[in-house]
Amino acid sequence: PPAPTSFHGSGLRHDRPVQCKHLLNMYGRYTQELGVYAKEEAARLRESGQRRSISERSRTLDLLEYEKGRCAKCRICTVRCQKFLISRVGEDWIFLILLGLVMALVSWVVDFCIAICLQAQKWMYGGLDSNVFLQYLAWVTYPVVLITFSAGFTQILAPQAVGSGIPEMKTILRGVVLKEYLTFKTFVAKVIGLTCALGSGMPLGKEGPFVHIASLCAALLSKFMSLFGGIYENESRNIEMLAAACAVGVGCCFAAPIGGVLFSIEVTSTFFAVRNYWRGFFAATFSAFIFRVLAVWNRDEETITALFKTRFRLDFPFDLQELPAFAVIGIASGFGGALFVYLNRLIVQFMRKQKTINRFLMKKRLLYPALVTLLVSTLTFPPGFGQFMAGKLTQKESLVTLLDNRTWAKHGIAEEFDYIGHSQAWQHPQVNVFVTLVLFIVMKFWMSALATTIPVPCGAFMPVFVIGAAFGRLVGESMAAWFPDGIHSDGTVYSIVPGGYAVVGAAALSGAVTHTVSTAVIVFELTGQISHILPVMIAVILANAVAQSLQPSLYDSIIRIKKLPYLPELGWGHHEKYNIRVEDIMVRDVRYITLNCCYRDLQNVLMVGHLKTLALVESAGFLLGSIERAQLQSLLSQQLGRARRLEYIRERSLSEKKNLSVLTVPSKNEENQRASQEVRFQQISTEESTFSPTRPAAQKPLKPALKRPSVVERTTEIPTGLGPHDNSGIALKNLFCSSPDPEGLEKNNNTESPTAPELRRPSKRVRISVVDDGDVEDDMTIREIAEWEEMQLDEQVNFNNCKIDPAPFQLVERTSLHKTHTIFSLLGLDHAYVTSIGRLIGVVSLKELRKAIEGSVTAKGAKLRPPLASFRDSGTSSSETEATELHKLWDRHNTSLPRDLTPSESDEKSQ
Amino acid sequence: PPAPTSFHGSGLRHDRPVQCKHLLNMYGRYTQELGVYAKEEAARLRESGQRRSISERSRTLDLLEYEKGRCAKCRICTVRCQKFLISRVGEDWIFLILLGLVMALVSWVVDFCIAICLQAQKWMYGGLDSNVFLQYLAWVTYPVVLITFSAGFTQILAPQAVGSGIPEMKTILRGVVLKEYLTFKTFVAKVIGLTCALGSGMPLGKEGPFVHIASLCAALLSKFMSLFGGIYENESRNIEMLAAACAVGVGCCFAAPIGGVLFSIEVTSTFFAVRNYWRGFFAATFSAFIFRVLAVWNRDEETITALFKTRFRLDFPFDLQELPAFAVIGIASGFGGALFVYLNRLIVQFMRKQKTINRFLMKKRLLYPALVTLLVSTLTFPPGFGQFMAGKLTQKESLVTLLDNRTWAKHGIAEEFDYIGHSQAWQHPQVNVFVTLVLFIVMKFWMSALATTIPVPCGAFMPVFVIGAAFGRLVGESMAAWFPDGIHSDGTVYSIVPGGYAVVGAAALSGAVTHTVSTAVIVFELTGQISHILPVMIAVILANAVAQSLQPSLYDSIIRIKKLPYLPELGWGHHEKYNIRVEDIMVRDVRYITLNCCYRDLQNVLMVGHLKTLALVESAGFLLGSIERAQLQSLLSQQLGRARRLEYIRERSLSEKKNLSVLTVPSKNEENQRASQEVRFQQISTEESTFSPTRPAAQKPLKPALKRPSVVERTTEIPTGLGPHDNSGIALKNLFCSSPDPEGLEKNNNTESPTAPELRRPSKRVRISVVDDGDVEDDMTIREIAEWEEMQLDEQVNFNNCKIDPAPFQLVERTSLHKTHTIFSLLGLDHAYVTSIGRLIGVVSLKELRKAIEGSVTAKGAKLRPPLASFRDSGTSSSETEATELHKLWDRHNTSLPRDLTPSESDEKSQ
Repeated sequence: PPAPTSFHGSGLRHDRPVQCKHLLNMYGRYTQELGVYAKEEAARLRESGQRRSISERSRTLDLLEYEKGRCAKCRICTVRCQKFLISRVGEDWIFLILLGLVMALVSWVVDFCIAICLQAQKWMYGGLDSNVFLQYLAWVTYPVVLITFSAGFTQILAPQAVGSGIPEMKTILRGVVLKEYLTFKTFVAKVIGLTCALGSGMPLGKEGPFVHIASLCAALLSKFMSLFGGIYENESRNIEMLAAACAVGVGCCFAAPIGGVLFSIEVTSTFFAVRNYWRGFFAATFSAFIFRVLAVWNRDEETITALFKTRFRLDFPFDLQELPAFAVIGIASGFGGALFVYLNRLIVQFMRKQKTINRFLMKKRLLYPALVTLLVSTLTFPPGFGQFMAGKLTQKESLVTLLDNRTWAKHGIAEEFDYIGHSQAWQHPQVNVFVTLVLFIVMKFWMSALATTIPVPCGAFMPVFVIGAAFGRLVGESMAAWFPDGIHSDGTVYSIVPGGYAVVGAAALSGAVTHTVSTAVIVFELTGQISHILPVMIAVILANAVAQSLQPSLYDSIIRIKKLPYLPELGWGHHEKYNIRVEDIMVRDVRYITLNCCYRDLQNVLMVGHLKTLALVESAGFLLGSIERAQLQSLLSQQLGRARRLEYIRERSLSEKKNLSVLTVPSKNEENQRASQEVRFQQISTEESTFSPTRPAAQKPLKPALKRPSVVERTTEIPTGLGPHDNSGIALKNLFCSSPDPEGLEKNNNTESPTAPELRRPSKRVRISVVDDGDVEDDMTIREIAEWEEMQLDEQVNFNNCKIDPAPFQLVERTSLHKTHTIFSLLGLDHAYVTSIGRLIGVVSLKELRKAIEGSVTAKGAKLRPPLASFRDSGTSSSETEATELHKLWDRHNTSLPRDLTPSESDEKSQ
Repeated sequence: PPAPTSFHGSGLRHDRPVQCKHLLNMYGRYTQELGVYAKEEAARLRESGQRRSISERSRTLDLLEYEKGRCAKCRICTVRCQKFLISRVGEDWIFLILLGLVMALVSWVVDFCIAICLQAQKWMYGGLDSNVFLQYLAWVTYPVVLITFSAGFTQILAPQAVGSGIPEMKTILRGVVLKEYLTFKTFVAKVIGLTCALGSGMPLGKEGPFVHIASLCAALLSKFMSLFGGIYENESRNIEMLAAACAVGVGCCFAAPIGGVLFSIEVTSTFFAVRNYWRGFFAATFSAFIFRVLAVWNRDEETITALFKTRFRLDFPFDLQELPAFAVIGIASGFGGALFVYLNRLIVQFMRKQKTINRFLMKKRLLYPALVTLLVSTLTFPPGFGQFMAGKLTQKESLVTLLDNRTWAKHGIAEEFDYIGHSQAWQHPQVNVFVTLVLFIVMKFWMSALATTIPVPCGAFMPVFVIGAAFGRLVGESMAAWFPDGIHSDGTVYSIVPGGYAVVGAAALSGAVTHTVSTAVIVFELTGQISHILPVMIAVILANAVAQSLQPSLYDSIIRIKKLPYLPELGWGHHEKYNIRVEDIMVRDVRYITLNCCYRDLQNVLMVGHLKTLALVESAGFLLGSIERAQLQSLLSQQLGRARRLEYIRERSLSEKKNLSVLTVPSKNEENQRASQEVRFQQISTEESTFSPTRPAAQKPLKPALKRPSVVERTTEIPTGLGPHDNSGIALKNLFCSSPDPEGLEKNNNTESPTAPELRRPSKRVRISVVDDGDVEDDMTIREIAEWEEMQLDEQVNFNNCKIDPAPFQLVERTSLHKTHTIFSLLGLDHAYVTSIGRLIGVVSLKELRKAIEGSVTAKGAKLRPPLASFRDSGTSSSETEATELHKLWDRHNTSLPRDLTPSESDEKSQ
């Protein structure tokens, strides 16, 4: 640790991350602690590496200048350019270009592989057309094998890669670190798992996973780039880059830069920093550009065009009188979207609840994916049921046919229209095209809902998009059948374009499922036509309005299922969010530490609660700051640590030698009474020594170097990795939970409670004997250690070496729920203290807020208000009395707790 | 003020807004105070009105039910529906629909009037074709009259309506209230002024003003709706609605809902709440829909289509090899955009600096608009210079022709192509079409930059858009001339589409001027084609990159010119924003009040600074909260107020009556010496009484309460509206600034400075005699009053009735500039206190932050760092020493200022 005097130079550099961390903690981001050491280590390594590489490069430069060869100048120039480039590497735009490039390549390669997989399946199926059974076997086995492989591979390599990844990104962008979601392993698992899953031809999508892959890519690239220097280890910058990466993910998946940016904003952010906006645009555009250029380069396309290009009529895209039909599509899609989310959740919950099934499936983890795949592919088998639902088309093919600008049905009868290419699949000799469409919609609907529960990397956007397009097509075809000559009342005949309805339906249903409006933009970019902008917008907005009032979005639903730490959105137009206040929802029973508490209090606080940060209050109740649990733990372990005990032994032996003539030291194995008296004596002397002018610096070496990460609701966070020297202290701590009441501790400080030590000691002894077995150089017996520890615990805590966050976030008790929610979302808070003129009166954490919001959403105000309103009468005081109390509180220091004091005091005042 | 005991009932209701205010102040919004009383009054009126209307309605209901007429049931139903509707009126969506509807109507009516104005000019010009001079007169007079009227009308009715309004909206959405910008007068002035200004045919736009008009509309609608109840008086809700309104403004102006939402976000927000996103979409879509439906209804269009529909080739929009040309357009537009902003600012600054011109123009305010209009319209006179720059086309017509999908020039020579309609204007018998285009671009460029400085409601978006389109067309025509058969290497001939280049140019230049990416979306929506998405995106991003590195956006430039309180954006990729820290930029000399200060300190603080809020610190330096200036002023005026003086007189007379036999009161008109002795006596007795054990708090008054203000430069904030009873106190305060040195006051408090009172008294007497003239019932003489006031000033301040904001925003000194900027933008802060473990060590306001950002932007890090780094050595202490100081500070209360104490203490510690 740097000397406290060194404000300049490298000492300062090392101080900075620590201080920055403080501030970040202020906003409850339990982010920064993770891997502080790892980062510092990396920075050191990097610095030395840099220094080395720079010196090497300059040496080569010198060498070259002396060489005076023919192309020496040229080489020097190259080296200089290289130098310049390396210095520029820190720039954001290079990072974004690299990210875009990599993601475009990944997207293209994945698409290419998927296409090959699907072709292979078709080829197998086509080659075996002599025997239906063999055909069926090929048709079914292929996806089962691929899905099973994907599930197994993902499970083994990185189970975090399962699913869409958007819920996790939403959580990460809120400031919660889910570290294992951004590793290289996850990247590999996600890419390969996704390719296999989509190659199987199941109704799965690539959008969600691509958001995750892009974020992974950004995180890895960031790590890689930090090897070249720059500001890649900055936390807030990384968050900004992740936000841009999400946009890239969608952008390169659909070649839709604008839609990508907007979709990623809607899906992952609560408050969006506009300065990130053009980062996202830049990277997503570059990525989409490269993605489409690759297609041109591969001779798939003649030039850069949209992915699912449509050729609708430009001059008269739709009539005004068709708008009701579009509105109907919107509303129906809203219900459909809510149903999809509900169905998806129902399937997950059903699979979880059915214990017998569950147990069986858990044993054979790959059985569930295989079974689902078997079921789905059996039903889509083209010669079987698949013939009624265009089963032989891949997802892409069906989307292309659905967006076709020709009309399939005229005058209500399926005509012998010139089906070309894939459109033929929708035609069936026996049944109407409407029946095919309806069957397609119904079957694909539950199939998609089911398929997205398979534990492989997969998204639900594309399947839903296709279902929506089919639904739109159905309505469009019906309209075309109903009005064969169009609706327009003037002379010109403008026939109805069912493809336009398909576009509207696709946007509306995918918008309803994801609760986004930007699907409208995505369809424009996907189809390359914007002529249907108003119908699409109207349908998407109606679908959103309906779906949002019925169900959470698919991603929020998954967040709830996975129990990720996320704050739900406030409902739309719930007035009571302005009426509920922090004092209604806060936890009044706050655990805190007072500035002049003793180590025993510390221990009790640590034993009882599991809070990650604890409030530090002045004895009168004023909030001074917050301290992390780990800090306190290290304080305690230092106090009870072996180093200090050995020092004590040394000192004691010295004083023994000195006082040998004056005072006989009692034998070590005496009875309790005398030992405890000695403890008292020692305690007093220690306290005296801390107050003496000669030893203020000696107090300091006891550094609390042990910072621990602290992430929400994760069981791995309870610190275990304290140094080997602290074993005894930790052991003690684990046992010392006999007085869980923090209120009772204050009198323990001042008065002597003679019974407590006796009660505790036996158990302690047992435990310590286990830990300190074979401890030879330390000549204290177990009982002595116990006595010594008891003594140490009664000392007042020295917070000198403790990192205190001096400005934890504070709210006043009258803050509305709406405002609290805004502040929590804005700053990514985990908890906030509620203070009343500086005095701590409560704490609100994400949990309480979430409960309150969910309560208010379901209860519609009236229900929540009355029971909570009763709190207000006892807990608060008017502003008039507060200032007086403030005065009083300043005058006396060791009063009782402020929250016990408040009501009576204020009553006295006001009478 | 409500009784402190009343926790329930109406007393509570009145408390709430006050408390909410506290919290809002916490974020430095000096918003809430404005018109709190007005609001409360309005709420009361509304409540009573509601009650009345409800009772009336229920009476009619009863009447109807008794009536038993034929259509009674029907009527009852109607009344119930009405009731239901009124209860629903609070819902957001009704508000948004109404807003969209109104704005669509306004937009359509404005467009209609503009079209009529322009037609009238054409008609006049066309009718007078026999005489060129008359033609010229008509051509020139018409716009001069319109512009002059517009300027005069706006000037008289509401000068706030001048200009675009986007800079003001940006400031308002940041949380700064510019109340006068959202009044009905401004609305009228803006709408009528805009119609006249655009009707003149000058190169002005309607987008910016429409953002303002929509916001005005939302504010007025909100006020109107609050008559029906609901939550329309909520501050944060209003901000959300204003954000939606900005989207509506752009949306209904261009019939571009998506582009409107995005543009308004980019232009007005720093952090965007995604929950507002769909509000904006909803309202903007509805508005655009109605706007276009009105066009259909008016038989302008057959169905809903884009405003400037293009008909480019769909199958092969552009070749990959054309991309460099698009990139060139982007980069050139970037430079052009920066030049436009620079030119615009230059013109404004030139007009301001040239004092002789300025004085002349100021005298005749309408001369400048008239002169500019005269110049511009003379140059565009079609038979004159206008023939070389398509002068006879209106802005809309030229845009339509520029986006035309035919090629104007083939093989380098202006062919006799079939110019139809307006395209003919670009053809000139003598000169090439390229010359016409170049002249158009150059002339329109400076004309637009000049015209937008005219003090009428006008925007610059549309003129810039047209110039960009012309530039794009120029490049496109050149490309078409260069590659007559297109670039594509394969067999098929795909000729180049210059219209596509025009689209790209329009998006790029308008993007560069406004620093937005969403102009890309706007052009898609305007043209109804998205096929050029990649070229447009590439060009817009390049244009933005170039323009952002050269100049601020047009709106930021206007913000700077108008000196609106706004926080500039952080530059892109400036690493030093992570290195500069709050301690480098904060003001260390903070003015604060201590908890136990006396009224004299208060007075001095109030006299010296102009801060709107003052920090309240505990005597050891701990920040307790902040108090508003007005609160302190009222405290002081109460203390020195007449009511209290009269009470004192009453008390004195009572005691005099009692002590009449013991002590003779000296006659009131004696010479100075005795009076001053008496003053001493009085003062001392007061002090003695404060030292008596019954008033132990009085030791504390001697506080160094005197700090320097540092908040945003607005002079209107000094409150003057104190009650009539406080006249004498106020008068005193105005005079009491004879000792401006705040540090020197401390000894004035304690020791007796015999000269100072004598010096002050005469002037005081004079002033007071003016104020207290004819004050009969109050038997104190002027001198007595002065003495009494002196005495009163030495009393300790009683903060009981003072509203203290208990949680002002705090930062720690190591917070990075980047983070500070984020927090300020996120929370709309005005200032934040910098604390070190609770102790106030500095304050950062918007001003410091702005300076630091502008410094860092221009200085590129190295320049800014060293001078500021020197502060660090003296001002801060490492985290190790802080906790110790905390201990120390807790133990002694009446130490000196923390900032004097810190360095020496920490040095002692660390050695």
